[in-house]
Amino acid sequence: MISDSEERLDRMSEECGVFGIFGSNKSGEVQDITYFGLYALQHRGQESAGIAVSDGNAVFCHKGMGLVAEVFDKHQLSRLKGGKAAVGHVRYSTTGDSQFVNAQPLMTRFKRGTMALAHNGNLINTDSLRADLEESGVIFQTSLDTEVIANLIARNMESGLEEALKKVMGLICGSYALLILTENKMVAIRDPLGIRPLALGRLGDSYVVASETCAFDAVGAEYIRDIKPGEIVVVDEKGLRSIQTAAPLNSALCIFEFVYFARTDSTIDGISVYMARKQAGAILASEHPVEADLVIGVPDSGTTAAIGYAEASGIPYGEGFIKNRYVGRTFIQPSQQLREQGVRIKLNALRRIVKGKRLVVIDDSIVRGTTSRKIVEMLRLAGAREVHMRISSPPVRYPCYFGIDINTCDQLIGHSCDVEEICTAIGADSLGYLSREGLMKTVEGSGCGFCQGCFDGEYPVEKKESRKERKKEEDNGPEL
Amino acid sequence: MISDSEERLDRMSEECGVFGIFGSNKSGEVQDITYFGLYALQHRGQESAGIAVSDGNAVFCHKGMGLVAEVFDKHQLSRLKGGKAAVGHVRYSTTGDSQFVNAQPLMTRFKRGTMALAHNGNLINTDSLRADLEESGVIFQTSLDTEVIANLIARNMESGLEEALKKVMGLICGSYALLILTENKMVAIRDPLGIRPLALGRLGDSYVVASETCAFDAVGAEYIRDIKPGEIVVVDEKGLRSIQTAAPLNSALCIFEFVYFARTDSTIDGISVYMARKQAGAILASEHPVEADLVIGVPDSGTTAAIGYAEASGIPYGEGFIKNRYVGRTFIQPSQQLREQGVRIKLNALRRIVKGKRLVVIDDSIVRGTTSRKIVEMLRLAGAREVHMRISSPPVRYPCYFGIDINTCDQLIGHSCDVEEICTAIGADSLGYLSREGLMKTVEGSGCGFCQGCFDGEYPVEKKESRKERKKEEDNGPEL
Amino acid sequence: MISDSEERLDRMSEECGVFGIFGSNKSGEVQDITYFGLYALQHRGQESAGIAVSDGNAVFCHKGMGLVAEVFDKHQLSRLKGGKAAVGHVRYSTTGDSQFVNAQPLMTRFKRGTMALAHNGNLINTDSLRADLEESGVIFQTSLDTEVIANLIARNMESGLEEALKKVMGLICGSYALLILTENKMVAIRDPLGIRPLALGRLGDSYVVASETCAFDAVGAEYIRDIKPGEIVVVDEKGLRSIQTAAPLNSALCIFEFVYFARTDSTIDGISVYMARKQAGAILASEHPVEADLVIGVPDSGTTAAIGYAEASGIPYGEGFIKNRYVGRTFIQPSQQLREQGVRIKLNALRRIVKGKRLVVIDDSIVRGTTSRKIVEMLRLAGAREVHMRISSPPVRYPCYFGIDINTCDQLIGHSCDVEEICTAIGADSLGYLSREGLMKTVEGSGCGFCQGCFDGEYPVEKKESRKERKKEEDNGPEL
Amino acid sequence: MISDSEERLDRMSEECGVFGIFGSNKSGEVQDITYFGLYALQHRGQESAGIAVSDGNAVFCHKGMGLVAEVFDKHQLSRLKGGKAAVGHVRYSTTGDSQFVNAQPLMTRFKRGTMALAHNGNLINTDSLRADLEESGVIFQTSLDTEVIANLIARNMESGLEEALKKVMGLICGSYALLILTENKMVAIRDPLGIRPLALGRLGDSYVVASETCAFDAVGAEYIRDIKPGEIVVVDEKGLRSIQTAAPLNSALCIFEFVYFARTDSTIDGISVYMARKQAGAILASEHPVEADLVIGVPDSGTTAAIGYAEASGIPYGEGFIKNRYVGRTFIQPSQQLREQGVRIKLNALRRIVKGKRLVVIDDSIVRGTTSRKIVEMLRLAGAREVHMRISSPPVRYPCYFGIDINTCDQLIGHSCDVEEICTAIGADSLGYLSREGLMKTVEGSGCGFCQGCFDGEYPVEKKESRKERKKEEDNGPEL
Repeated sequence: MISDSEERLDRMSEECGVFGIFGSNKSGEVQDITYFGLYALQHRGQESAGIAVSDGNAVFCHKGMGLVAEVFDKHQLSRLKGGKAAVGHVRYSTTGDSQFVNAQPLMTRFKRGTMALAHNGNLINTDSLRADLEESGVIFQTSLDTEVIANLIARNMESGLEEALKKVMGLICGSYALLILTENKMVAIRDPLGIRPLALGRLGDSYVVASETCAFDAVGAEYIRDIKPGEIVVVDEKGLRSIQTAAPLNSALCIFEFVYFARTDSTIDGISVYMARKQAGAILASEHPVEADLVIGVPDSGTTAAIGYAEASGIPYGEGFIKNRYVGRTFIQPSQQLREQGVRIKLNALRRIVKGKRLVVIDDSIVRGTTSRKIVEMLRLAGAREVHMRISSPPVRYPCYFGIDINTCDQLIGHSCDVEEICTAIGADSLGYLSREGLMKTVEGSGCGFCQGCFDGEYPVEKKESRKERKKEEDNGPEL
Repeated sequence: MISDSEERLDRMSEECGVFGIFGSNKSGEVQDITYFGLYALQHRGQESAGIAVSDGNAVFCHKGMGLVAEVFDKHQLSRLKGGKAAVGHVRYSTTGDSQFVNAQPLMTRFKRGTMALAHNGNLINTDSLRADLEESGVIFQTSLDTEVIANLIARNMESGLEEALKKVMGLICGSYALLILTENKMVAIRDPLGIRPLALGRLGDSYVVASETCAFDAVGAEYIRDIKPGEIVVVDEKGLRSIQTAAPLNSALCIFEFVYFARTDSTIDGISVYMARKQAGAILASEHPVEADLVIGVPDSGTTAAIGYAEASGIPYGEGFIKNRYVGRTFIQPSQQLREQGVRIKLNALRRIVKGKRLVVIDDSIVRGTTSRKIVEMLRLAGAREVHMRISSPPVRYPCYFGIDINTCDQLIGHSCDVEEICTAIGADSLGYLSREGLMKTVEGSGCGFCQGCFDGEYPVEKKESRKERKKEEDNGPEL
Repeated sequence: MISDSEERLDRMSEECGVFGIFGSNKSGEVQDITYFGLYALQHRGQESAGIAVSDGNAVFCHKGMGLVAEVFDKHQLSRLKGGKAAVGHVRYSTTGDSQFVNAQPLMTRFKRGTMALAHNGNLINTDSLRADLEESGVIFQTSLDTEVIANLIARNMESGLEEALKKVMGLICGSYALLILTENKMVAIRDPLGIRPLALGRLGDSYVVASETCAFDAVGAEYIRDIKPGEIVVVDEKGLRSIQTAAPLNSALCIFEFVYFARTDSTIDGISVYMARKQAGAILASEHPVEADLVIGVPDSGTTAAIGYAEASGIPYGEGFIKNRYVGRTFIQPSQQLREQGVRIKLNALRRIVKGKRLVVIDDSIVRGTTSRKIVEMLRLAGAREVHMRISSPPVRYPCYFGIDINTCDQLIGHSCDVEEICTAIGADSLGYLSREGLMKTVEGSGCGFCQGCFDGEYPVEKKESRKERKKEEDNGPEL
Repeated sequence: MISDSEERLDRMSEECGVFGIFGSNKSGEVQDITYFGLYALQHRGQESAGIAVSDGNAVFCHKGMGLVAEVFDKHQLSRLKGGKAAVGHVRYSTTGDSQFVNAQPLMTRFKRGTMALAHNGNLINTDSLRADLEESGVIFQTSLDTEVIANLIARNMESGLEEALKKVMGLICGSYALLILTENKMVAIRDPLGIRPLALGRLGDSYVVASETCAFDAVGAEYIRDIKPGEIVVVDEKGLRSIQTAAPLNSALCIFEFVYFARTDSTIDGISVYMARKQAGAILASEHPVEADLVIGVPDSGTTAAIGYAEASGIPYGEGFIKNRYVGRTFIQPSQQLREQGVRIKLNALRRIVKGKRLVVIDDSIVRGTTSRKIVEMLRLAGAREVHMRISSPPVRYPCYFGIDINTCDQLIGHSCDVEEICTAIGADSLGYLSREGLMKTVEGSGCGFCQGCFDGEYPVEKKESRKERKKEEDNGPEL
């Protein structure tokens, strides 16, 4: 049995998704379109959802804990009617307690008006920025990096928002795909390394911005291009303006967007996620071939690579697991006793299919190893003769500081164990990881660089403070 | 865009799932096990859920509208603690209003004690039975067939429950997989034609019964055998007793369980649902070959057959659609305007994958044709060069009277149109249905007969009254 | 500290309130008027609420657990639009678990159509009636007497509803103020002893019926008269018809309606509840005079009698307690420790007012004595010099079988103790009860008789079966 | 009919209630005691509730929209376990939309740690303070004065919290009863004019602070004294320290606390609210005598003064209205049509009591006059022969800037009309207001001064900016 929370601990977790729209739109109200856009980005965050709308004079916001469909009902959406622009946000689900104050967009009023911020990413110099601000008397009401950014913007507004943003981008360090909504403009910013994705599209006369292109498909919008690393895109009544703050020399798009985070139907910086995953499977087949009867994927993240592996290897593809689609947040976890008895809530192995078979099992990554061990065990109990684990990315050996919930090396089986040891730990007959070269091949042609810090510990910017320590501080934070 | 409610209208709908357990169990309380069992059967019904528990002296029940995880929280489950036996029920989701009074198990008190009934199926002589009962002064509080059955049992109890059940089975006509829980026994009954599935298993010292074997896997139980058509299985402190009420001559298991209803990992009457679906795809490939570049399935019901078609045809298998996993009951439907603009909530075609390709698209069935038309359209918009629709079952031409929500011929495109006309209507380049012979081949070896009434209008028992008329009456029924 | 649940155990509890309307009405929809009518009767029951509406062809119902304002929102009410007649019900709040199946109106379908029943009262021959019905094969789904009545009506319908009702009134024994709604008529029935109140009024062209006249005031209706004991009032398109089933010889209106149950602004069988209570206080002053400084009432039930006592005795009236108006169903009870520390949630004595004073404290009755003891203690802690308890009704010595939640003699301090012993038990300086003659004087001129069974154990009809036993059975009942 | 929202507009509205506790306590956890304390202060605010708890190292908070009993359940309370100190807040209910961001305590993190603020009152120089702060780059996330205060404190912390508070008290102008909780201390502050009440008490070894003494009674605490105007009381492990920031020369306690806001059982600055109200009635009787048969109060605020009037005049006291105790926030308002028909939701006149009588009707104040007009009308319809309105305070002629929801003169009937005109407007036979001298007599002996700005327009501090204008700005504010 693989419980929801356990699996969550055993997957890398994306932090957020953002969506924005500016412009009169014949096809629907901006809040409705943002609702459907966020809905398509729901996989990027299930903890909270929010939409801020501007009607040209003021900015209004509704947000709450839960899924988009839980936070917004018809009544709530209709109260946001009549807007000219909107930004929305979905936040990832932690295992701990939910905190309303950390829901986004963050609403702030300051000298020049009102500003709603929706942020996907993670600053790495928050502590020093926060300390400097506190030193000058600033109070904080949340544990969001976004609040730090909002304060910095407010303090640099003497020459207007755009100048302020340029200055702030020189101060903050880390990953950010950031949407800002004021009374009369929407701004989209991508950090100079382009760590988090952010794409630009068009819907009728409106411009739309989203973490992933699947949100464009969801609302019927047309993809224009990706926001460039270091680019500020301003949309207002006069149209769209691009400000390139820094030469996007060594961009460092998070490679895990392709491995796991993004939805298969999205295209990021020119690369189709589906194609990348399928090719990963194919290369994996050539790098780690094995004689077997069936290739299966761990649903849902291993499926596409499994199809690629099967096609490349000539070994038939099949479904080895059924995933219960009704697992929700309120589900009661089985007792330890029941779990030992073999209660299987989320995944069930297809006995008739795997029995007596030599299996190639494809998963996207191994974090702690617990899930993989249970998957191998479940397949063996279902009668599998051999279980050959193949991972469509290199071993995760280092923590991530740019918005992913891997705090310490200790939790990473790839940090302390080599492949052979991991294979033993998870009980597989063999284990093969995709090489870094192989993975890079899957995203060839994007023209951008990639952050692979979790594989090699080499981060695009120097880590100055440990996320773990900050995390700990947050846990003592003001709001339960 | 394919809305949830539209698709629901365009799929055949299963009515219910049942689960029962009797016996002291070391691995967990009966109510917890029933909870997890129902959870695995959630795909059979999302409208309401309920669990009745007997502690040897009395029967208690909790039920409510919504998913299993919504109806039961820890508090509610713990209030059912200490039982010796339990039966549970999930009910399908209609498009109309939900009615609490129709939630099951149905609790009744009568001369000999208390009885909880959980029923999957549909009687076809309800109207005359109900009329007879009303003639003798019976009042009804629900629109459930189950209430008719409960009244008939109560009136025939002079020689005890088992005799009563035998008599009642002689009176009622239709499909029923029925679980009954009294103070000291659990009874499982399958109608003489075996139209609905019902399987028997063992969990430690306990016996378990479930609509599908996937529920056994979910709770760690071991499959023993299927309940036989016409069999009454009584489980009490003395053990298990089987009463065979009628020779199961011409059993008529609903073939749609294999086509669509059952979960892929279940085994019904000896046949693996996965194997049957995959083979259906393979046979379909031989019956309706086509030159193409990619085989894709309409998720989730077409996936397995698509894998089978691909393997048999040698055409590569791929994912052509991404399904949003967060579509829930409270989701706001887009306006007509937004839908026309191309808002896609549930399914999104993978443009990069389908663009320029000649596609074979596998779905399990075509009911009204609306969904198929939209799927074809969506693929064309995504750049598909050719769309060849293949259906892994024969055309649905006739309504079903045994528990499936197809009321009239008018709604069935297969009733008024031939294959060519349907192909034109849905806009496909070609359309091929699995032949009836082909479908029968997928379930060969089960040793049982099948109801194929929806394909040929020949029902295992004579239809005496129109479900539609009764339905209409129900809509005027007492409870909103 | 007097907790909510404790006080509830220490008050007599009314079972229900009913409201009905028939006829086209210019001033509002029947469901809205019923909503406001029930709202005015909310003091008669807080456990569940329901409204059934007929549109001339069918009867629809919505009901639920909780207060009227919790069960119905605008959406729910609007779904009942367009009706020609309606009946509503509020049910009392027990200390135990709430049971949805016992919410009323009870909806039943039977040979002749549909019938909604809303019932205030309690049958005393339920067990034998139920046994007879069960003997003939009837099943029961609730523990309501109402379900027994519905079955009896259904079995006697050969000559129509009115004849059936006459017959049924010959079979059932106990208290009932009963409203029945069918497709085309509303019927109001009061038991031959007139134990529970039921009044008739007019609102424009419509007839209205209610447990208390305060509901007429609430909807702007005009009081016509009380329904007579044993009377059946039928209202349909042809107008109003009265059927007097039995000479109302020895009517036996529950005297506790005047003592405690009814709202002060209601008039029952010609007697103003306010006047009766005020006069009770005045007579109490003459029967149990005492030298004192201040007369105070235990809010809210003792207030009116306290005003009467003060006026008659010449001792000033004052407020001695403040009642927290925000005590609701979900309130967290303080721990035993906190209670001992003196946490006071519901009532707070006005120290400045009572300090050093000789107090006359008026309450309506003493059931278990716990509340009175705490009240005396609270006043002494607040500095009262003397506490003279005066009760505006005779000692409650016997249980009630007609719809009041006093199950056994054991719980009644008045059963085992004489006045002096009670005085000692509650710690008062003196204790005086209103005499039975005194109480009877307060309702003089009503022209009807009264049930005083709880004072003298002489019930208007012979008790055949113990409510307690039945209650126990119910607790093992089918529905949690 | 007097609707809830109408009456709310026609009453002065108190803004908030605060409660705090510091110190190890044998009688219960600090969060539980705060819960019960807030519960007793619920009449001061029904919009939101919150509790912040410090465990010595960190401060945690839970807050939400609704009543105390709605915001906190057992689970939420238990999550705040183990604290050493706590502060709580209830916020008043506006007619507009509720805003979670404005719920208190306000949690802030700043250089020196964490601070929770709970504030009752209203600053009158917010705009300029806010402008100054914004000028220096501060961002605001709420529309609370409290956020301004928090920023000012944070900017003046160089010499510690106490020095900062002294400085901030020199900057802010207006009314504030303020509780601050940090990791290791609780601070209670009352503005230099003592406009809002704040009392100090003891519960075992703990110190408690509350807006009203009724909260002390509720938790079993002992009243010590009132916090003095301009006093800062610091409680920490070392005990209690008082800092008197300014000579409390001309204190200006809001006189309306006695007239209407405070609970009758509270004592403020030495004066019993009950006594003051009763005496107001007595003086009113001597100032505005009238020949009449009965004195009645408008519940609940007119009741105590009515008792005083009756006693002083010798005219009998009675209840003239029954108030429905179940009016809650979700109640559906009747349509205009129904209201014209005479639907009475909240108040019902006791016809039998008032019919033919010459009535003296006591209410606490007249704001817009609408309620009074309806009350007179209701009594006349119920048959009252004469209706003599007596108001237990002087005419409200001017807006309030210190925390009461009267925004403009236009809404005040007392601003534009003299007593005779008001009498005509409300339709009474005569109208008499308590004189200012009379009112002052009721609070004689308190030793403090009073703000009577709403009577004479003379405010204890100069009004610098219109609340109305600020209010308007707020309505365009960031959060819905």
